Amino acid sequence: MATTGVTAPAGFSAAGVTAGIKQSGKPDMALVVNNGPRFDAAAVTTRNKVVAAPVKVTRDALNNGTLTAVVYNSGNANACNGRQGDLDAAEMQEATARELGVKPSEVAVCSTGLIGDLLPMDTIRAGISKLGENLGDNGNLAAEAILTTDLVAKEAIVSRDGWSVAGMAKGVGMMAPSLATMLVCITTDAVVSSAVLDSALRDASGETFNTLDIDGATSTNDTVVAMASGASSVQPTSQEFAEAVTELCEELSRLLQADAEGVTKRVVITVEGTADNAQALNAARTIGRDNLVKCAMFGSDPNWGRVLAAVGMADAEMDPEKITVSFNGTPVCIDSTGAPGARDVDLSGADVEVLVDLGTGGPGRASVRTTDLSYSYVEINSEYST
Amino acid sequence: MATTGVTAPAGFSAAGVTAGIKQSGKPDMALVVNNGPRFDAAAVTTRNKVVAAPVKVTRDALNNGTLTAVVYNSGNANACNGRQGDLDAAEMQEATARELGVKPSEVAVCSTGLIGDLLPMDTIRAGISKLGENLGDNGNLAAEAILTTDLVAKEAIVSRDGWSVAGMAKGVGMMAPSLATMLVCITTDAVVSSAVLDSALRDASGETFNTLDIDGATSTNDTVVAMASGASSVQPTSQEFAEAVTELCEELSRLLQADAEGVTKRVVITVEGTADNAQALNAARTIGRDNLVKCAMFGSDPNWGRVLAAVGMADAEMDPEKITVSFNGTPVCIDSTGAPGARDVDLSGADVEVLVDLGTGGPGRASVRTTDLSYSYVEINSEYST
Repeated sequence: MATTGVTAPAGFSAAGVTAGIKQSGKPDMALVVNNGPRFDAAAVTTRNKVVAAPVKVTRDALNNGTLTAVVYNSGNANACNGRQGDLDAAEMQEATARELGVKPSEVAVCSTGLIGDLLPMDTIRAGISKLGENLGDNGNLAAEAILTTDLVAKEAIVSRDGWSVAGMAKGVGMMAPSLATMLVCITTDAVVSSAVLDSALRDASGETFNTLDIDGATSTNDTVVAMASGASSVQPTSQEFAEAVTELCEELSRLLQADAEGVTKRVVITVEGTADNAQALNAARTIGRDNLVKCAMFGSDPNWGRVLAAVGMADAEMDPEKITVSFNGTPVCIDSTGAPGARDVDLSGADVEVLVDLGTGGPGRASVRTTDLSYSYVEINSEYST
Repeated sequence: MATTGVTAPAGFSAAGVTAGIKQSGKPDMALVVNNGPRFDAAAVTTRNKVVAAPVKVTRDALNNGTLTAVVYNSGNANACNGRQGDLDAAEMQEATARELGVKPSEVAVCSTGLIGDLLPMDTIRAGISKLGENLGDNGNLAAEAILTTDLVAKEAIVSRDGWSVAGMAKGVGMMAPSLATMLVCITTDAVVSSAVLDSALRDASGETFNTLDIDGATSTNDTVVAMASGASSVQPTSQEFAEAVTELCEELSRLLQADAEGVTKRVVITVEGTADNAQALNAARTIGRDNLVKCAMFGSDPNWGRVLAAVGMADAEMDPEKITVSFNGTPVCIDSTGAPGARDVDLSGADVEVLVDLGTGGPGRASVRTTDLSYSYVEINSEYST
C-alpha cells in the first residue's frame, strides 16, 4: 500500500518511531532519507532573530545544495539552550549520518516542542538507531511522529506524468505559526537542480505558508526542507515543477489551517483596492491578526465594524470613506457604512470569506488564511509547558 | 460629599443619566461642563485611519483651543455611519450647545459602543435635555455613564497646593484599546494656557495611555479631552502642571489595565539593553501583543521560551545569544538559555513583571502594561454585537 506522503515519490524511505521524548508515549522521532540517484535540496527557515540550534545546523547543511536525509524530533524544540543546544543538534546530525553511512553535512535536523529544555541525548541516540532499523515506505509514520499539539497528520501529493512531489507538515504557519514551529518536508522524484528546487520552494512558500497566519507568532524553529531524488528520470520544466510545488504547498497550508489550535472557523481574508499587492498583504494580515475580529468569528458574529477598526491601523493607503466589506459574498459595509441586513448575515458555517476593498482603485490584491480565536486556543496555550 | 472625579476641581459640573441607548437600562449619557472663568482645552484622538464621526467633530471643536463642555454617549460608537453619522454627531454637538447656551464649536462629542448602527437621535435629544437638568457635582455619575463592558467606574485626582487635576476614564488603552474605545476626560482648576495643556496632555499620553496595550487593537473613537477652568486662580509652572497630569494619567492607566476585558493578570513588560527607548518600546509591545505569551500568563506558566520567540520578531536590534529574561525579579533566562529553576517560578499572583534585556549594552528602556488572554476575553468579545 503506497503512502501519500514523503515516501510516495520514487527514491525515498522514511521512519517514524517512539523514542520516549514525549511523556505521552506518542511517536516523537522521524527520518526521511533520499536514496538518490540525485541529492538536490533546498530549505526555507524562520525569519525570527532567535534561531533554534537545529535551524543553524540545517542552514549550514544546505550550503552545498544537497542533502541525503532529514532527522526530526518532536516534544523538544532544542531552542535557547546555549552552547549545549548547539552541540546536541550537531550530535543529532552526526549520529544520523553515522547510522546512514553519509557525511554529517548531508543531514538536516528539525526539532519542535518546548523551548528551553535540553534534549535528552540518550533517548535521541537510541531513537536514531531505531529510525535506521525501521526505514521503509513509512511516510505516514514519519508524518505522525513530527506532530505536537496537531490533531491529525498532514500529508499531500501532487502527481504529474511520470513524476510527483509530496510532503508532510506539522504546526501552523510559516511567518506566523501557532505553537512553536511549522515543519514541512517535501520530496520529489523529478530531476531538478538545487537552484530550481530553491526557487520553486521560495516562491511557493511566499504564496502559501507565508500567508498562513494563525496568531501572528513566529517560531524559532520553522523549517521547510525539500529533497529531489531524480529517481523518475523525468526532468520537468522549471515552470511545470514550480507549479506542482505551489499546488502541494497550497494543499499543505489548507491542512495546517484546518488543524490549527482550537480552530472552529477557517477564515480567508482578501484585501483589494490597494496600490500594490504588498499593501494588500499588510492590510489582510492586520485584519487576520486582530483578536477582536477573531473573537467575532468564533461567535459567528458579522461584526464588520471590527474589520474596519482593524484595517484602519494597517500600513496601507486607503480611502477611509470608501471601504467595502463582504462576508461570504454578501456586502455588509459599503462606502464605510453598514449595508442593509448586515447584522443578519449567517456566519455559522466553518468557512468564512472576508473580502475588503480599501477604495483607492489600485490593482493590489492579496489573501491570508487565518482562524478564529476560541476558548480551546486559550486552553491549549495556557496549559502547554506545565 | 465631594466627588473624586471630574467635578472635584473648582469650576466644573457634570451629569450622568440613563437616556435609553443601552438595552441594559444602565446609564448611557454624560456631560462635563467647564464653568470658567477660563476655557482652555486640548485633546488627543485616535491614530486609526478610520475615524468615528464624533472624533471629527471634536477635532474641529478644538481648533481654537477652548471648550465649554464634552457630551458623551455609551452603547453606540457612531462610527462607520456615513454622512448620516456626521450629521448626527453635529446635531449632538448643537443640541448640547443649545442646552448650555454656548456656541456649538465650544462642545466636544465622544461616543463609544457598537460600530455601524445609527444613533437613536430622539433618545439622544431627550438625553441631552435630561443632562442639562441634572448638572451638578456629579463626576461619579458621569464616570458611570460612559462605561461599556467596563466593570467599574474609573476616576482619579491629583491635588496640589490650591489646585488639582482630576479625570475619569473608560475602556482600555489608547493606541490599543480592547473593546472599542478608550475615553478620558481630564479637568483642572489650574490657570494654564491651551498650549501648556496640550503639551502636558501629549507628553502624559505618550508615557501612559500609549503604553497600555491590551490586545493590539485601536479604536475608531479613542479620545482624551482636557479642560482647564482657571477657577483656582493658581498658575503652576508648566513643569509642575505636566508632572501632575502625568501622575493622573498614570493612575487612570493603572485603573484601565486592572479593568481590562477578561483580565486575570496585570502584566508589566519592560525591555532594556537596546540602542534607544523607541526600540525598547517596539520590543516590549511585540511581547505584550503575543497571544502565546498572554495565554501562558493566563495559565501562570513561566514559559520564558515564548518571550524569546516573541521578541525575536521585534523591530529592534538585539544580540540573540545574550538575551536575559526575569519574571517577578527572578532570572529565568540568562544569555538566551534557561536559568536553573526557571520552570518553578511562581506566577500565580495577579501581578507579573517581565524584564527583558536584549543584550546590546545600549541605554534604551521602555515598559508597556498589558494583560493575560483568558477565556473571559474570548467570551466577552465573541458575544458583543449580538
